[in-house]
Amino acid sequence: MSQVYGRVALIGLGLIASSMFWAIKRGGLVGEVTGYARSEETRATARRIGLCDRVCDTLEDAVKDADLVVLCVPVGAMEAVARQMAGSLKPGATVSDVGSVKRAVIEAVGPHIPEGVHFVPAHPLAGTEHSGPESGFAELFDNRWSLIVPSGDPDAGAVADLRALWEGMGANVDVMDPDHHDLVLAVTSHTPHLIAYTMVGVADDLRRVTDSEVIKYSAAGFRDFTRIAASDPTMWRDVFLTNKDATLEILGRFTEELFALQRAIRTGDGDLLHDYFTRTRGIRRGILDAGQDVDAPNFGRSTKAK
Amino acid sequence: MSQVYGRVALIGLGLIASSMFWAIKRGGLVGEVTGYARSEETRATARRIGLCDRVCDTLEDAVKDADLVVLCVPVGAMEAVARQMAGSLKPGATVSDVGSVKRAVIEAVGPHIPEGVHFVPAHPLAGTEHSGPESGFAELFDNRWSLIVPSGDPDAGAVADLRALWEGMGANVDVMDPDHHDLVLAVTSHTPHLIAYTMVGVADDLRRVTDSEVIKYSAAGFRDFTRIAASDPTMWRDVFLTNKDATLEILGRFTEELFALQRAIRTGDGDLLHDYFTRTRGIRRGILDAGQDVDAPNFGRSTKAK
Repeated sequence: MSQVYGRVALIGLGLIASSMFWAIKRGGLVGEVTGYARSEETRATARRIGLCDRVCDTLEDAVKDADLVVLCVPVGAMEAVARQMAGSLKPGATVSDVGSVKRAVIEAVGPHIPEGVHFVPAHPLAGTEHSGPESGFAELFDNRWSLIVPSGDPDAGAVADLRALWEGMGANVDVMDPDHHDLVLAVTSHTPHLIAYTMVGVADDLRRVTDSEVIKYSAAGFRDFTRIAASDPTMWRDVFLTNKDATLEILGRFTEELFALQRAIRTGDGDLLHDYFTRTRGIRRGILDAGQDVDAPNFGRSTKAK
Repeated sequence: MSQVYGRVALIGLGLIASSMFWAIKRGGLVGEVTGYARSEETRATARRIGLCDRVCDTLEDAVKDADLVVLCVPVGAMEAVARQMAGSLKPGATVSDVGSVKRAVIEAVGPHIPEGVHFVPAHPLAGTEHSGPESGFAELFDNRWSLIVPSGDPDAGAVADLRALWEGMGANVDVMDPDHHDLVLAVTSHTPHLIAYTMVGVADDLRRVTDSEVIKYSAAGFRDFTRIAASDPTMWRDVFLTNKDATLEILGRFTEELFALQRAIRTGDGDLLHDYFTRTRGIRRGILDAGQDVDAPNFGRSTKAK
């Protein structure tokens, strides 16, 4: 693969940035990758494990002369970072991000982008429940979708380069409108996360069932909720605060449907339940056919105790 | 491992029964395993793939002379099966089952168990989203929990033999009271399944987000819901109809909590969200420590397209 950028700056060194770094190295996509994290401890960890070609002690140093700056901090922290780095950006550079919400990021970051610098927001749809600089791995984006979500009238060259970088890191790329992005993600990610957090919270709270029982007997379905509900709390707080309208809309639809099923249980309407449960199988088939999951029982999890 | 029973009859040849057969063979736990399914097609499939040492065309033939009869049919079908086979059971035999609900099974099956036959209900907490005679595999129960849920005053020898069989198939065994079982499973399995079905139904229904978008972008969290929501519709209809009270109780708790989080999103209460999302991480840690899941990113799923 050929080099896409001379220098890339990764701001915020968590799961996504560290995976980007290893994927960039795997593909030989960038001349030099600089990195910055606000926490001194994170910077020290990054230096220790060889994360980034050069870890900088200031934001300004990290973005200086970078052809691409990628904001990998929680959505709620992006405005402050954008404001602080604005004066240090190289003319002609591109600023991008990996935030899970796009309208709010465009409103927070956009106004701080100087004339002559391109702003091309993006969102890789990949993650695990782990966070921090040591959680990244080069394969995270392989065969996953990364959405480029331009605001206004984007520079075609800047979009093409960012697409080449994401494709070089293994991802498929689509371009999407910000408001539609936020609605789609409210369905495929934000509401499912809120629901999983809620269910795990209920289980933790219930006095008549002990935590130890919940943990031992989790393989019956609950286990998958706990993985989702172990994701980074700061990131998810910011997602819900900044994608409020779409999340509340989907939550409204969700509770409406849930009440209909609850009523069917109460009244003993087995046909309604059976029809509903049959319909949902089709979507699963589509996901398997699209290569977005494997069909192996138990996800290919080891069945042995660790 | 030594033989636990001379003859075992598996009634209903789906995911659980077929996995039991392969696990029994792996362990050399039983002299002969007979099998019966109501559908001629299922019996033909079983014969073709070598599922069961002998597939019988009638329920009565299958249970004749069996030391253990395991009902592996949906909970709603158990009463009819129990009534039909009652006259063919061998004196001193044990009848068990694998239903996901225990109080309702005890009430439906118990009255049909003849004098001199032991009734020891059980429930293996293991499964996949697949169903049918070809979906089973010997490792399904390895390191999973199987609950023995005796009704009344069980025969100690019958319980000990059933425990030995489940342990021989790789499971850990606990004994639990029926009502407590139904509450624990409402938390760890039944309510999570209903929620997953609901979320997938909402996504399928939403006109402004296409099914193809939902499918492509499912890796962001939704994917795990679709796996759960692909489980057998008949089995799950029966679970909700027969564990109505506990499911409705947990659903009530769930919606109460969900409304509190929804309100926090609406009012912008980031602290409440952050605290909630931090608390739920502890349960995940416990599940990993208990060996009930693996910590590998993406569950060790292949990241390549199939």
